[in-house]
Amino acid sequence: MAIRVTVWNEGRHEKMDAAVAAVYPHGIHAVIAEGLKEAGYPVRTATLDEPEHGLTDKVLAETDVLTWWGHMAHGDVSDAVVDKVQKRVLNGMGLIVLHSGHLSKIFTRLMGTTCLLKWRDANENERIWIVEPGHPIAEGLPEAINLPKEEMYGERFDIPAPDELVMVSWFKGGEVFRSGCCYKRGSGKVFYFRPGHETYPTYYDANVRRVIANAVRWAAPVAGPVPPLGANVQPLEKLD
Amino acid sequence: MAIRVTVWNEGRHEKMDAAVAAVYPHGIHAVIAEGLKEAGYPVRTATLDEPEHGLTDKVLAETDVLTWWGHMAHGDVSDAVVDKVQKRVLNGMGLIVLHSGHLSKIFTRLMGTTCLLKWRDANENERIWIVEPGHPIAEGLPEAINLPKEEMYGERFDIPAPDELVMVSWFKGGEVFRSGCCYKRGSGKVFYFRPGHETYPTYYDANVRRVIANAVRWAAPVAGPVPPLGANVQPLEKLD
Amino acid sequence: MAIRVTVWNEGRHEKMDAAVAAVYPHGIHAVIAEGLKEAGYPVRTATLDEPEHGLTDKVLAETDVLTWWGHMAHGDVSDAVVDKVQKRVLNGMGLIVLHSGHLSKIFTRLMGTTCLLKWRDANENERIWIVEPGHPIAEGLPEAINLPKEEMYGERFDIPAPDELVMVSWFKGGEVFRSGCCYKRGSGKVFYFRPGHETYPTYYDANVRRVIANAVRWAAPVAGPVPPLGANVQPLEKLD
Amino acid sequence: MAIRVTVWNEGRHEKMDAAVAAVYPHGIHAVIAEGLKEAGYPVRTATLDEPEHGLTDKVLAETDVLTWWGHMAHGDVSDAVVDKVQKRVLNGMGLIVLHSGHLSKIFTRLMGTTCLLKWRDANENERIWIVEPGHPIAEGLPEAINLPKEEMYGERFDIPAPDELVMVSWFKGGEVFRSGCCYKRGSGKVFYFRPGHETYPTYYDANVRRVIANAVRWAAPVAGPVPPLGANVQPLEKLD
Repeated sequence: MAIRVTVWNEGRHEKMDAAVAAVYPHGIHAVIAEGLKEAGYPVRTATLDEPEHGLTDKVLAETDVLTWWGHMAHGDVSDAVVDKVQKRVLNGMGLIVLHSGHLSKIFTRLMGTTCLLKWRDANENERIWIVEPGHPIAEGLPEAINLPKEEMYGERFDIPAPDELVMVSWFKGGEVFRSGCCYKRGSGKVFYFRPGHETYPTYYDANVRRVIANAVRWAAPVAGPVPPLGANVQPLEKLD
Repeated sequence: MAIRVTVWNEGRHEKMDAAVAAVYPHGIHAVIAEGLKEAGYPVRTATLDEPEHGLTDKVLAETDVLTWWGHMAHGDVSDAVVDKVQKRVLNGMGLIVLHSGHLSKIFTRLMGTTCLLKWRDANENERIWIVEPGHPIAEGLPEAINLPKEEMYGERFDIPAPDELVMVSWFKGGEVFRSGCCYKRGSGKVFYFRPGHETYPTYYDANVRRVIANAVRWAAPVAGPVPPLGANVQPLEKLD
Repeated sequence: MAIRVTVWNEGRHEKMDAAVAAVYPHGIHAVIAEGLKEAGYPVRTATLDEPEHGLTDKVLAETDVLTWWGHMAHGDVSDAVVDKVQKRVLNGMGLIVLHSGHLSKIFTRLMGTTCLLKWRDANENERIWIVEPGHPIAEGLPEAINLPKEEMYGERFDIPAPDELVMVSWFKGGEVFRSGCCYKRGSGKVFYFRPGHETYPTYYDANVRRVIANAVRWAAPVAGPVPPLGANVQPLEKLD
Repeated sequence: MAIRVTVWNEGRHEKMDAAVAAVYPHGIHAVIAEGLKEAGYPVRTATLDEPEHGLTDKVLAETDVLTWWGHMAHGDVSDAVVDKVQKRVLNGMGLIVLHSGHLSKIFTRLMGTTCLLKWRDANENERIWIVEPGHPIAEGLPEAINLPKEEMYGERFDIPAPDELVMVSWFKGGEVFRSGCCYKRGSGKVFYFRPGHETYPTYYDANVRRVIANAVRWAAPVAGPVPPLGANVQPLEKLD
């Protein structure tokens, strides 16, 4: 069965900043969605300024994997929507958090830490090394992804140690960063992927698109057992 | 330098339930504190019904490791105090979460998941197996800790996979449970330890006390680097 | 593309012990293979007493995932074959190690530890709890798998902590065991799955078959980058 | 009780290469030992060309933590000595593997993988970032260790994912590397630390010495339970 993706975007930079609109005239979400459609997924988009940020109960119920890009307006995302997204993740929905989404309410809530980092916006070369070549998210990738121009994010990145660390970035200015981080939370999976500053054409890059498409497949829900969380249970009957 | 411990207890069951008061006449905190004093730590206690729950800025600043027992009144812990405890943990304070503290605000916030489990209160035998005998928390322990009477907690326990899983419990009624779970969050360390229902004399048990004392030593703050979280940084000067 | 499975079996107990032959008249491998064929995989089998143990270069080259059952004759497996299997795993082939295969040359070599455990063969009830319900290997399973009669394996199991711990067993006699353990080694994936003593009909159990089929899918090779291991490399050309 | 350290060194480069002898006139081991003595540990040294490579049963029995530097003569280390060192690690001895020790028999055997990497010896700046500031091995360190001249080691480093990843290196030429890697194997602990090419004065660096001294403390044996590995056990007596 096809994995249904919802691409969520804050969508504010594109409206307020000509430099961003020049790169993403129809919004960052349109370009991420385009990449995922090319990969064969049924995709819809949702943005902050739609009612309920476009994430109605119906939309969430029909979403297998949600991608999240936000930056300047994390505080405008309603707590009620974050509650619902968190619940869906814990019940199995995949979540792909992109770039400045590291400070989104949903990501910091799922991590339990500040998720702060150091940064520099200086048109700087990034090289994303694949440190786990056998991981499903590494499929079809070269041993490193070269992005000629990106914003720098540097360690210390205040996250829990990833369950699986798939990628580490090198920046010309002297820093490193854990760029591809896998987590299981509840019955759901979360992948954080670093690149994607709004002024660079990162989401047009074929390898970046490949990573996001692979991550969607990796994060898709699994029809595993649904444990009776919080239940007061009886002893198992005599077993032999 | 001595590791300064604060033993926090909700302290309500002991006042309301004669059966609990019979086991812990001066409160659960008094018995946990007694064990830690015997292990050589300077210890103070704090309880829910003190001003600021006994966790003033001064107390938190003077606490290296905080132990947490709560059950019936998680909702009465103020968010402001939880904010401060979380911040201290991320800045390096150790946190030992005991038994029903799995549903405390501070633990669920640091985990990002529901932390729910299944349970049964039936005077039931628990055997806590040490699965990592080389871990500092295993020091001085036998290969299993036998508790003749305890409440059962069973999997699925809805937590992130521990960074280190040190103990797994067996229950006579048929369940297993990840009973000794280590996490790093920010610069701090968190240890969840399962046993300790309020109607059983668990915190008088020598091995249980040994676990808590070992966990305090493991969770003590480390004088590591203090990274400039959130800083906009310049490229490193030319390095060679 | 279909995942090609080779089911390897020592195959000695079945020839020497009527009680085993009664349960597995055509060998344990025949029954494991039957389960995997029903799950849709192309399957071949190989056994210890075939030339090169049935694992010729051609067979290994055509194997995406290898399952391994052995017990009484680990020492009869040639080091040359173990070398080749290890190399294939590190290059991406999946490996599913079953039950007493914990002491096989290939598993202990990939783990680097003794892989010893404690045990008891006493017709004993085992209950395998799924502790990670969102893991691909948990697909389609109930929250616990009940096996009325099995051999007991108990902790301490001397393995490296699994990258992902999916299942924990409860035994009626008082022990627990890490029963479903995922590892990445090189570009390959390894899954250890506990049950399967030769005198019990474990590999006819629908849930046990489901686990093995799921594990094959999880362990299948990924077409990721092939890193230039051991290479003396030049600095990357000027990048911006 | 003091942690007794044995510093092991191949000791061949120093005898054969004037450039190395100029940096380490009394051998790399002498300088590593000097740093550890300054940190307060009782230290002895051992080298390849001594009888039994200096690692007699008595020396191993009196060693709590062993540090290992080797490069050009890994193949000359006898398998019998490697067997004994592995056994001691699994029984609790700490092991600190330095730089080119990544290809030593003892490290590759404990890892189960090739431990290969890519490399370049080009007088190149390395910056070792601390990604886990709360880890005991990070105590007293700055947020990054700057080494003006070192050999480059680059990913993919073919190791199992570390149990804890404490450090990541940046190299001027464009690579990254997992530089500080913690493992538990058996009841013992293993730390791999990247820097230390024989032609650079790395082991005189105060921060490098601090890392090694911290790692010794972290890797020291714990007096935990000694599990009955391989035992055929009886059911636990009736427990309640």
